[in-house]
Amino acid sequence: MTTTLEAQDQELRAHKDHPASVRLWLRLLSCTTLVEDTIRQKLRDQFDSSLSRFDLMAQLERHPNGLTMGELTRRIMVSGGNTTAIVDQLENEKLVRRLVAPTDRRSFKVVLTPSGRKSFVQMAKAHEKWVVEMFGDLNATRHKQLHDLLGLLKASIRDSQSPAISKDKP
Amino acid sequence: MTTTLEAQDQELRAHKDHPASVRLWLRLLSCTTLVEDTIRQKLRDQFDSSLSRFDLMAQLERHPNGLTMGELTRRIMVSGGNTTAIVDQLENEKLVRRLVAPTDRRSFKVVLTPSGRKSFVQMAKAHEKWVVEMFGDLNATRHKQLHDLLGLLKASIRDSQSPAISKDKP
Repeated sequence: MTTTLEAQDQELRAHKDHPASVRLWLRLLSCTTLVEDTIRQKLRDQFDSSLSRFDLMAQLERHPNGLTMGELTRRIMVSGGNTTAIVDQLENEKLVRRLVAPTDRRSFKVVLTPSGRKSFVQMAKAHEKWVVEMFGDLNATRHKQLHDLLGLLKASIRDSQSPAISKDKP
Repeated sequence: MTTTLEAQDQELRAHKDHPASVRLWLRLLSCTTLVEDTIRQKLRDQFDSSLSRFDLMAQLERHPNGLTMGELTRRIMVSGGNTTAIVDQLENEKLVRRLVAPTDRRSFKVVLTPSGRKSFVQMAKAHEKWVVEMFGDLNATRHKQLHDLLGLLKASIRDSQSPAISKDKP
């Protein structure tokens, strides 16, 4: 495991001649990757599940009336083919079901079954515990500082987006 | 574009009853996703390229003696099948080539060609500029604070990893 995580430490790409922003970006990416890798591994080890399954079920939990395949694909950032494969798999395990609209037999929404909801809640509780553990060495002050600074960063990214698109075009 | 980015804002998953760590994690993930989406879109618009191609070429640029397919797959976090597809595509465009070992005709390493290196350097310069723009609203003090806090977070994540594996097992 150590080898894999070392190989995936994105910050190893940082050179000292990189601008400060690039070094900061690689450190941010490195933290995100470490957390995701840890969650992915624990979901597999403890629930025989995957991050894509967890993310998809999280979306369904937030939308009790169900989501169409298109809505799911847009929300979980996997390709359309993968969404279908995950939904098929979850349906086989009776964790989700397809809800066909009476007005249009061709369209359907995907919803969690009661046992899907139960299974998701268990994973979500464990997920919370893992995140709390991973972030545990930061005290409340640093927690708040980091939350606020990331809020400023997020505003800065959004700020750069609209004008940058026309500005950057050759 | 706004719709897509809104749909992918991971922080929308945050509830007020989530622990502070989970809200911080979702904000961190949200920043990383926003930066990656922006880079992905600009690579496509301005270089007709992808994040996987860029990451793979970045690895080859750091290893002038080449990397095996296995080494590439481990370093860029895509599945083995995808690495082969990307390498084939880059080889067709004469941006990489396969270097067969004289001692073992079955094994080979992938290296950047001179035109691959040139193409990568152009993309890397643009990539730097985009990151500097996205992080541009943070002044030097905040830049340093965020870098330091993410360093502490990274240590905290690593710290939680080894003991947590045995501790968490049911």
